[in-house]
Amino acid sequence: MKKPALHTVLSPALLHLYDVSNTVVVVIDVLRATSTIATALYNGAKEIIPVDSVERCIQLGKELECITAGERDGQVAPGLQYGNSSFEYPREFIGNKTLVLTTTNGTKLLHMALAKGATEIITGSFLNLSAVCDHLSSINKNVILGCAAWKDKPNLEDTLFAGAVVSQVKDHFSINCDASHMAENLYQVAKGDLYGFMKKNDASHYHRLTNFGLEKDLRHCFMPDEANILPEYIDGKLVVLK
Amino acid sequence: MKKPALHTVLSPALLHLYDVSNTVVVVIDVLRATSTIATALYNGAKEIIPVDSVERCIQLGKELECITAGERDGQVAPGLQYGNSSFEYPREFIGNKTLVLTTTNGTKLLHMALAKGATEIITGSFLNLSAVCDHLSSINKNVILGCAAWKDKPNLEDTLFAGAVVSQVKDHFSINCDASHMAENLYQVAKGDLYGFMKKNDASHYHRLTNFGLEKDLRHCFMPDEANILPEYIDGKLVVLK
Repeated sequence: MKKPALHTVLSPALLHLYDVSNTVVVVIDVLRATSTIATALYNGAKEIIPVDSVERCIQLGKELECITAGERDGQVAPGLQYGNSSFEYPREFIGNKTLVLTTTNGTKLLHMALAKGATEIITGSFLNLSAVCDHLSSINKNVILGCAAWKDKPNLEDTLFAGAVVSQVKDHFSINCDASHMAENLYQVAKGDLYGFMKKNDASHYHRLTNFGLEKDLRHCFMPDEANILPEYIDGKLVVLK
Repeated sequence: MKKPALHTVLSPALLHLYDVSNTVVVVIDVLRATSTIATALYNGAKEIIPVDSVERCIQLGKELECITAGERDGQVAPGLQYGNSSFEYPREFIGNKTLVLTTTNGTKLLHMALAKGATEIITGSFLNLSAVCDHLSSINKNVILGCAAWKDKPNLEDTLFAGAVVSQVKDHFSINCDASHMAENLYQVAKGDLYGFMKKNDASHYHRLTNFGLEKDLRHCFMPDEANILPEYIDGKLVVLK
């Protein structure tokens, strides 16, 4: 039986080169949107509505009377209630609540994948690595690992996560994609100490976040399976796929 | 003294994200345009005129009464005289001749860099690795390592070469660029056996070329400093920078 194809897209600016229709797209924004999404849903959030602007976030928050969250440049955006740190969303706070979350890179990629006809969109981070891999290994469909990147420039953390997925699911796919091989090789170098690898390579986002005193938050984003659920985007909302 | 910046651009489709003005751009198309360019110039070619279409290649070849070369899908393109293999350009054949060469990915990137205001454009391949690195280390200018990629999709061989350059010149630059760190880490994994790394990872271009029986040619493209000159693009022509 012919295996389905898997591709890694290192930046949203390269997505147009790939056939997204009839494909499952994994949106990857490790620092920190998809890590926050995994944590909030793992801790019992009812649903998360990703939006691409602070204005839309404020507006929806009022309409739905729910929690609003989002950051710009590592700080809670003016007009919103919470930030982009997993530690802000413990179970006693977020349980059964709706969260409207504005992110730039991740939400943009999610909407692009939707517009291009993806049949299924899930989100991935190290916190829910196994849930993502188990799902992809079982569905027998073409997959795109979509890195949200940073303002369209490829980044280390999203590429490393793509590599972690490739290393776990590759037997189930036909992988004729150099970016996937690059990502997997990087992950093999880094996997013993992902946080240390980011630090050693002075990754641009590591640099940006540690400047805001977010080391603890950053370390948490590299802990595999700490919030091991599968967020799926259905009718404009991210919910836990049962 | 502030060091100049170095960035690696993994695909021409990402070039618009970077400031190309006042920058030295290294055009990288390891398989095989920039390897062929290094070899032909090393073997005494007077100049190489890169063009982006077979038609333009044929036209210029007639006007200038010179050698025309280029491939499409691994074969000599119809209407042209020679292909894209280093072995076709020994000294006794190419010495003091003008070559009009059509390539797709490499020429496109070169013209883009020119249009965006690069102050200097050189070409790089493993065959002239040291010449490229010596030049970049000495000029104290911002640098972009531009991977020609394959139809805009990032590829292993160009990224590996960028990584080889980064590993040699990094002390001379300020590198706030995840793609450069990714490339260097990949190169560190692969450097003991570059050809073996391509084979092991079933790189898409390795696959494409070996299907045409070009293993020998491919191996040659990964031999450092076999044609160690510096091709520079001046007034529409690639010549050896003295």
